[in-house]
Amino acid sequence: MAKEPPIRIKPERLREVVRDIFVAAGTSAEDAATVAHALVWANLRGIDSHGVSRVPRYLELFESGESKPAAEMRMTRPRRGVLLLDADGAPGPVALSRAMREAISAAHETGIAWAGVRSTVHTGAIGYYAGFAANAGMIGIGLVAGIPNMAYYGARSIGVATSPIAIAIPAGHHAHMILDMATAVMALGRIQQFRAQNRPLPEGAAMTSEGEPTTDASRANIPLPLGGAKGSGLSLAFELLTSGLMSNPIVTEYHQKTPLGRRHRQNAALIAIDISAFTEIEKFTRTVAATIDTVKNLPRMTGTEEILYPGERSARVMVTREREGIPVSAEVWNSLKKGAEKYGLAISA
Amino acid sequence: MAKEPPIRIKPERLREVVRDIFVAAGTSAEDAATVAHALVWANLRGIDSHGVSRVPRYLELFESGESKPAAEMRMTRPRRGVLLLDADGAPGPVALSRAMREAISAAHETGIAWAGVRSTVHTGAIGYYAGFAANAGMIGIGLVAGIPNMAYYGARSIGVATSPIAIAIPAGHHAHMILDMATAVMALGRIQQFRAQNRPLPEGAAMTSEGEPTTDASRANIPLPLGGAKGSGLSLAFELLTSGLMSNPIVTEYHQKTPLGRRHRQNAALIAIDISAFTEIEKFTRTVAATIDTVKNLPRMTGTEEILYPGERSARVMVTREREGIPVSAEVWNSLKKGAEKYGLAISA
Repeated sequence: MAKEPPIRIKPERLREVVRDIFVAAGTSAEDAATVAHALVWANLRGIDSHGVSRVPRYLELFESGESKPAAEMRMTRPRRGVLLLDADGAPGPVALSRAMREAISAAHETGIAWAGVRSTVHTGAIGYYAGFAANAGMIGIGLVAGIPNMAYYGARSIGVATSPIAIAIPAGHHAHMILDMATAVMALGRIQQFRAQNRPLPEGAAMTSEGEPTTDASRANIPLPLGGAKGSGLSLAFELLTSGLMSNPIVTEYHQKTPLGRRHRQNAALIAIDISAFTEIEKFTRTVAATIDTVKNLPRMTGTEEILYPGERSARVMVTREREGIPVSAEVWNSLKKGAEKYGLAISA
Repeated sequence: MAKEPPIRIKPERLREVVRDIFVAAGTSAEDAATVAHALVWANLRGIDSHGVSRVPRYLELFESGESKPAAEMRMTRPRRGVLLLDADGAPGPVALSRAMREAISAAHETGIAWAGVRSTVHTGAIGYYAGFAANAGMIGIGLVAGIPNMAYYGARSIGVATSPIAIAIPAGHHAHMILDMATAVMALGRIQQFRAQNRPLPEGAAMTSEGEPTTDASRANIPLPLGGAKGSGLSLAFELLTSGLMSNPIVTEYHQKTPLGRRHRQNAALIAIDISAFTEIEKFTRTVAATIDTVKNLPRMTGTEEILYPGERSARVMVTREREGIPVSAEVWNSLKKGAEKYGLAISA
C-alpha cells in the first residue's frame, strides 16, 4: 500500500494550528500558545513521538476529564528554594513551563531551586523545559514520573515507568547540551518502530506480556530497564522524587488498581542551578565547550562517523526544520484535522 | 596455592586501626575518624572495593603530594542554597562529609542546597554521604567525577569516567533506599573479578585497550558506558555539574596530557532536599515504604528469589557484619600492616 507522503509545514504555521485547536477546546490563548511551542519544539528537534502527534490524546484527556483545558493551577513557595505547583490536571506544557520559569526566578536568589509539579498530564519532551534554564544561563534538570509501563528488575510484569531525566547545560559556541533519556533500554515507541519494520530487537530490550525476554518485536510489549537494576532503581527514585514529594503516588495506586490508579497523570520536578553562583558564566561555558570538543575528537570506533554530544543531532535537525519546515505525516495531519473538527474548526497547512 | 582465610574484625576495631594509621600519617584525630567511618561503612555494606582496602592508596597520595593529610579546606556560601568547598586535596571522606553536613544545614533554611566540592581524592562509596541526608529526614543526592577510565559512546579509547550518582531516600519501616551506581555497565573492579575467576563478561560491558569490544575478561581493559550514549551522556553531564561548576575540569586536562591532567583528583556535588518543605516527613516515608512494598510484591522472573529495592541487600549485609565482624582478606590486612609500618605503627586485629 502506497503511503501518502508527509507534508512540510512551517513551524510558525504548525504552532498556529495547534494553538487554534487548544483555544477551540477551551484553553486560554496564552496556554494554547505554550502547548503549541512545546510540542512543535519536539518536532523541530526530530522527536516526532513527543510532538504534535500527541494533540489528539490531549483532546481525549480533556473529554474524559483526566486533563482540564482551563485548570486552576496553584503555586506556593514554602521555602526560598522550593516551589510547589498543583497543576490541577493542566496539560504538561502549561504546568512544566510555569514551574521551570518560577524555578529559574527563585534560583537567581538562592542559587538553586526545585519546583515540584503535581497532577499534570503528558509533559512532552522534558529537555524542552530543562532548556529554559540553559537559555537563562543556568543548568536545568527535569524529572517526570508517569503510569507504569516498564519492568522492574527481577519482575515478570510491568512495575515502574520509563520515567525520564533531562539535563540541559549551556555550551558556549556549541548548541546547548541537552541529555534527555528514558530509564528503559528502549522506549515503547521505538520498540513499535522495530515492529513496524519487522526488525529483531537487541537482546535485553523488552519482554512479552507474559514476562519472557524476547527479541521478537511483534511479541515485545514491556520495555526492560536500562542496565537492569540501575534503570529500574533510577525510575523508582524519580517516582519518589516527584510523586512521593508531591503526595500523589502513581506506582502504588496503579498496582492497587484504585480508580485513581489507572487515570492518566504525571508528576514532575524542575530544577534550576544558577551557574553564576559558582563561577563566571563565560568561564563555565568555555569549560563545557572545551570538554565537548575533547570528547568529539576522541579516536572513533569503526563505523562511527562522528562522535556526538547529547542533543547535538537534535540541534542540527532543528536548524534544518526551522528552514525547510516540519515533515508531518498524512496520518498525523489527518488526526489534527479530526481533532479540530470536533470543535467545528477547519485547519489547513 | 591455598589462600589465607580472611580474618573477622569488629567494625569498632577496624575503625580504630584506620584512624590510627591516618593520625600517624598526619591527619587530625577528627578527620582520621571521619575517614575511618566512611571506609568501614563501605565494608559493613559489603562494598569491600570502596572500604579499608583503599587505605594504602591514600597513603601513596599523601606521599606523592596529590592528597594532603592536613589540607586547609575553604568553604564559602555565595548564595543561600549554594556552598562551595575547596578541599585543597583532602581525602574524599573529609571533604564530602563536611560538604553534605553543610548542605543539610542550609537545606533546613532554603529547602534545597547544593554543595560543590573541588579537588578532593578518592571519595569512597558516595551512597554514604547521600545517606547523611536520609538520616536527617532529607533526600540526599551525590555526584562524583574522576579521572577518565571509561569509553565515550562511539569512541575506541578511554574518554570519560565511570562517574557515579547516589540517591538516598528515607523509607519508613524499611532501611533507607540507597541507589549508588556507576555510569558504566560494569565498573573496572567488577571486570577484574571476572578475570580472576576466568569467567566471560556479558556482551557490551567492556573493550580491549585497542578499542575492540570483548567478552574475554583477560583482554578487557576499558568499561563501556551503561546503555551506550545514555551512560556516557550522564558521565559527561556529571563532569560538567561537578568539575565544570567548580572550575577544575578533569576530562579536558586528562586528554590534553597537562601535568595536572594525570594527577589523581576528584570533584563532587552533594545535594540535600528537605522533605518537610514539601510534605510531612511521615506521610512521605509512608509513601516510600508502600511503593517499595508494591515493587517487592510484583510477580517474579523465573530464577529471581526476591525482588530487591536499591540498597536492600547492602542493608542486610550491614546487620550481619555489625554483629559478626567484617571479613578482611589476608592481603588487605597485610597492606594495612605495611601502611602502618611506614609510620612506625604496629597494628593488630
